[in-house]
This record gives sequence, C-alpha cells and structure tokens, in this order.
Amino acid sequence: MGIGESIDPEKQALELHKKYKGKLKVVPKFALERSLLPYIYTPHVANVCKKIQNQPELWKDVCLSSRLIAIFSNGTRTLGLGNIGPYACYPVMESKAFLVKALGGIDAIPLVVEARDKEVLKSILRWIRPSFGCINLEDIEKDVVIPLYDELKEEMCIFHDDRHGTGIVTLSAVINTFQILNLGKEAKIVVVGAGTAGLGIVELLHAYGVREITVIDSEGQITEERKLSGYKQRLLSLIRPRGKSIEDAFENAEILIAASKPGSVKKEWIRKMRGKKALFLLANPQPEIPYEQAVQLAPIVGTGRSDYPNQVNNILALPGIMKAAVEKEKKKLTLADMIKAAEAIASSVIPRKEQLLPDVLDKSIPEKIKEAL
Amino acid sequence: MGIGESIDPEKQALELHKKYKGKLKVVPKFALERSLLPYIYTPHVANVCKKIQNQPELWKDVCLSSRLIAIFSNGTRTLGLGNIGPYACYPVMESKAFLVKALGGIDAIPLVVEARDKEVLKSILRWIRPSFGCINLEDIEKDVVIPLYDELKEEMCIFHDDRHGTGIVTLSAVINTFQILNLGKEAKIVVVGAGTAGLGIVELLHAYGVREITVIDSEGQITEERKLSGYKQRLLSLIRPRGKSIEDAFENAEILIAASKPGSVKKEWIRKMRGKKALFLLANPQPEIPYEQAVQLAPIVGTGRSDYPNQVNNILALPGIMKAAVEKEKKKLTLADMIKAAEAIASSVIPRKEQLLPDVLDKSIPEKIKEAL
Repeated sequence: MGIGESIDPEKQALELHKKYKGKLKVVPKFALERSLLPYIYTPHVANVCKKIQNQPELWKDVCLSSRLIAIFSNGTRTLGLGNIGPYACYPVMESKAFLVKALGGIDAIPLVVEARDKEVLKSILRWIRPSFGCINLEDIEKDVVIPLYDELKEEMCIFHDDRHGTGIVTLSAVINTFQILNLGKEAKIVVVGAGTAGLGIVELLHAYGVREITVIDSEGQITEERKLSGYKQRLLSLIRPRGKSIEDAFENAEILIAASKPGSVKKEWIRKMRGKKALFLLANPQPEIPYEQAVQLAPIVGTGRSDYPNQVNNILALPGIMKAAVEKEKKKLTLADMIKAAEAIASSVIPRKEQLLPDVLDKSIPEKIKEAL
Repeated sequence: MGIGESIDPEKQALELHKKYKGKLKVVPKFALERSLLPYIYTPHVANVCKKIQNQPELWKDVCLSSRLIAIFSNGTRTLGLGNIGPYACYPVMESKAFLVKALGGIDAIPLVVEARDKEVLKSILRWIRPSFGCINLEDIEKDVVIPLYDELKEEMCIFHDDRHGTGIVTLSAVINTFQILNLGKEAKIVVVGAGTAGLGIVELLHAYGVREITVIDSEGQITEERKLSGYKQRLLSLIRPRGKSIEDAFENAEILIAASKPGSVKKEWIRKMRGKKALFLLANPQPEIPYEQAVQLAPIVGTGRSDYPNQVNNILALPGIMKAAVEKEKKKLTLADMIKAAEAIASSVIPRKEQLLPDVLDKSIPEKIKEAL
C-alpha cells in the first residue's frame, strides 16, 4: 500500500483512493460461457421474468436486488463537513458499502442523489425500492432525515445509521456498563446532544426500558417548560427531566452519553454525578472531553475513536443489521430488532472496564446480530 | 452447471438463477486491513470528500460512481413480455449489467424503479445522476422512453440500448453488406417496424448518410399523407417515402431491415426487391420470416438469433459504448459517436455473406469501440 505513519495521513487517504479509483467493483458470480448465454440472456431469461411476474416472492431467490443494500445519501450532513453534496460525500458512502461487505458479507452500493426536499427524497426512496433489499440512510441533514425515516419505516426495510446505528452500539455499551457497575434499567442517564445520534440513543434506551433519561441540548436541559418543535417534542415524551437546569440533570447521574462536540460538556457537571459512573464521549474525531482528562473523572470511558478503549462506533451494528435485513427477509426493522442487535453485540464480549464492546473489525458480530434478529 | 440440452431450457434458466441467487456481486477492491481503516473511514476519508468539494473533477479519480453504469428500467416493455414491472424485469437488467462487465470490463448495476410517468422518470434520472458515470435506458415503453431520452441526451451521459444499440449493430451489418454487395450510401433501404428499434435504425442510417430510406409500420408506408404523431413525425423527416403503398417502398430496394414481429413481412414484398439484396429479420426469438425460408429469397440474411449466421444483437455495442462513456469521460453520447462505434464493429471482421458481424462474445470489440469514440 505504501501507507506510512510518517507521511501526512490526509494525503495518504487521497492516494489510496486514487490508486484504486474507488473501493468497490461489481463482478459476475460466474464466468460467461457461450453455453450459458441463452439462459441468462435472450431467449430464456424471459422465463425467469415471467415466473417472478406470476410469483412475486420468487424475486428473493433469483435477483441481486433482494440482497443488495443501498447506502443512500444526498451529502447534506457529511461527517463534520456539513452540506458538501452528493458528489463529494460519495467516498463516505462507498466506504460504508465496503465495510458492510467486508464485515457482513452483504452486497452494498452507494446511491447518492441531487435532491434535498423531504417529500422528493421520500418519493425517490419509494420509486427505487424494487432495486434493493434494504436501504440505509446516511449523512442527510437532520430536519429532513428524521421525519423522512419516520414516515417510511413502517412501509419498507429502511435503516438510519446515524440515528439507530449509533443508538444500538451505545445501548450495547450501556448494557455492559450496567453489568460492570452493578446498575440496571433504573440508572440515571444524561444525554448531551439532541441531534440525530442523540435521538437514536434516547429511542433505544427508552425502548430497552430505561426511564431516567435527561437530555441536554445547546439551550440547556430539555423540559416541558421549553418551546420545542419537531422531533424534540417527541424526544420529550421518551425522557424524564430532573429539575430544570443542566446541573439538576447531572445530579447523581450514573451514565453520561455525549453526542455533541468538543467543549460541550463541563467537568463540573461530571463532578455532580455518582462516583461509579461511565462517560461516553462520542464526538469524532475529538471527544467532548479529551480522553486523558476523562479517565481522571470516571472509571469507565468510551469514545468514538479506534485508538482508545471502548470505541462506540456505528460500524459495529450496520453490517449485522443489513445482514439480518436481507438474509432474514425483513419487511421492516423495528426498535425491538435493534434492541436484540444491541444485546447480541453486548453479549459477544466478557465486559471489562476497558472492553465494553467487541473490536469493530470482529467479523463474527454481523452473524451474531443476524441470529438474534 | 448441470445445463443439459435435453432438459426444458426455461426450467434450466430458472435453476441457474436460483443457484446463484442473482448474477452479480459487489466486492471490495482490496482487503480490509486494520491499518487501512482510518484512511477509508473516519477520520481521514473526510479529506477525500473535502478535496472533491474543492475540485469536483477529482470525482473521476477516486469514486466507483464515475465508472459505474446504471441499467435503468421500470419494466414497462420487457422483452416480448410487455409491462411486467420493475421486480419481474430485474433478471434482464442484471444480465445486461453482467454482460457489460463480462465483455467490456465496466462495472454496471441495475436500477429499476416503480414509476411510469415520463416527467417523474426524467426527474429521477437527474436526481440519481451523481451516482453513475453513464445511464443506460432499457425496456421502457416507447411513448415514454423516446421523448425521455431526447429530453435528456444533451445534458447527461445517457444511452438507450433498445433504440441506438440496435441501430449501431444494424448499421454495422449494413456497412458490411454495402461492401459485399457493392452498394453505397445511395442504397434503397426498407425498414419494417417503426417502434423504438426502427427509430434507432433510421436515425443511425440517416446520420451515416443513407437517404433512400422508407419505413413501413402496421398501417402501411409512412408518408407525408398520413396523420403522424409524436416521434413518427420526426421519423418522417429522416426518410424519403417512395410512392404510397408498401409495394412501392419495396420496388427495387436492396436492403430490408425488419424490427417487427413474425409474419409482418410478406414474401411477395421481398420479391419486388433487387436480386442482390440483404434481409435483416430482427424479431426475437422468431424472425419475421423463418431463416430457412429467408435464405431462399436473398443472398444475405441476418437475424437476432445466435444459432444462425449474422446475429444482429445490441449486446455487440453496449459494452463498448459504456466502456467509452466512462473511460473517455463522455459528457454525452452523440449520433456521431454511435456511427464511429458501428464502423468499429464493422471493420473488426473481413466481411463475408455469412460473417457480417463479429461474434457477440468477442471481447476485443468493446476496446475497439472505445478507441474509435
């Protein structure tokens, strides 16, 4: 590869992409032999079409589409880069598809679109549905993608990785934290950040049975007194505010989950938490509090980074969720499915303070998730 | 494979598709190693995105999309099966993608949509454009797809195989027929069938410089006297009707190209043609006149079938056109490009009466087409 530690890593990333001209390829499953041509092409392929027409469920047995994942984006909220559009976001989508195949063995392809309107995106997803077994939404601006997903989740196999992928893996870490710290569903949890990831985390915690959840956004604690619009109103129905201030929320809390940005969590808030506590600081690439400082404050710390223990990264969930979706022919993916996935991830390790989660490259995880769903 | 001649070929086609569960797969171009993860995923992939944002043409060097073909359909006119919809048409689209890769070395993937309206399809094609280097339209009902293609051809790299793929390969056969029968662009050509293929054939013949073209549809010869709507009005501008009747059109004609259905061409019409003549009977799987009878009527006969000489099949053109489109970064594909492709195909063989065209599985053809464009 020629990837050396001493050289500028950003330049190396570009060189790697240029070398391969993209990270995926589409290849035939068998060699093209003359004797096979009439069976895959004119005239006899027509019979396969007729059979599907008369027996639609046959689709699952004879087409790539039924087991192909779309990594769908418009690039309006790509990583920390903001709205960079469909062309510039493509390397991220191709990497997601790469990882779904490399880790989960499931075929996936990016589909990026030049469209921003929610209703347009919803129509596109309905129109393209026959081409895919499941569609994963990725890096779309939150005010569009949250209702977009909610309006489609009952009618097709669709997943929103930024929301529920993060939610699943965070729940896995929380489940194992419960075990180590001898906590349970009655634990007090503070979530800092009420974006897509924060919403998914709260939805999963709530569906798992946790009730003592408070949420902090840039304007303070989310409470009934605040004027809330859109999905934050729904978020309120899933949580149980404690007092009114941020400090009130942190008082005696046992777990902090931050999905925000560096500097958004103050150390004095953390000092209000119980002694046996866990901090999940998921901002990437720089966590909300630097890791070296965080470990001085709590016995358990997790981040989004691969170079520290307890990497909470949604790639732990996505390949397995997609594997289950296509191999178990899921018509939709429910919160109950996602909880099973979180439990499967959690139970795949013997939890220790510095090993709450399996390695992100552990190829046994997707199979375990699939079995659980 | 277990594909035996003695067994029902339609059943064999189904078994083959079931065995492989689709004919294509998506695979990573390199192995997933831990040391590479930061370069293809968080954090350094962000740099590749930023670079594309600042330098859009970089897209061509680092993304699958720039060299990926969409085989796009809604299944409204699949083979001879009519409107079977996106699910049932998928095996044909997957086979086309298979052949584009197996013959031309170019990555291709089906994209089928549940939409019929021309304006909707046009919007979809514009929205998905960033995901593909070129889009091939396939098996869409003619009254939709003909204007759809015409309205998009100047603004993106798009191709309509049923129309221009057939047109290119037919022109190749005509070019070599000219050589064998000592004819030229002044030759009198009758086209029977004014559907998508007929239109593409006439467009290519006209663009090549042939002027003495007459066209017969189900209502007779297309002439100025007839009330013509839509694309047939345009067709009229490309041809030169001779007299008014079908018989008038055939009088002294030298080449017949039928893209219609069995029984649509009468032998008495053919007897009005010159002695040195060629018949291209492209209806599939049964030609307009059975091959065994046709060879009694003319020195040169071509069909769409692989089991007779002179197979006129658009798969001879598509892989090369797609190869040229992505490897030469075509912003659009013009009739001039298509003529170059037809000439490249024609010149790849030393023409004989029973060898007007190269073998459809000749893998050198796509490269020759690409070089010509």
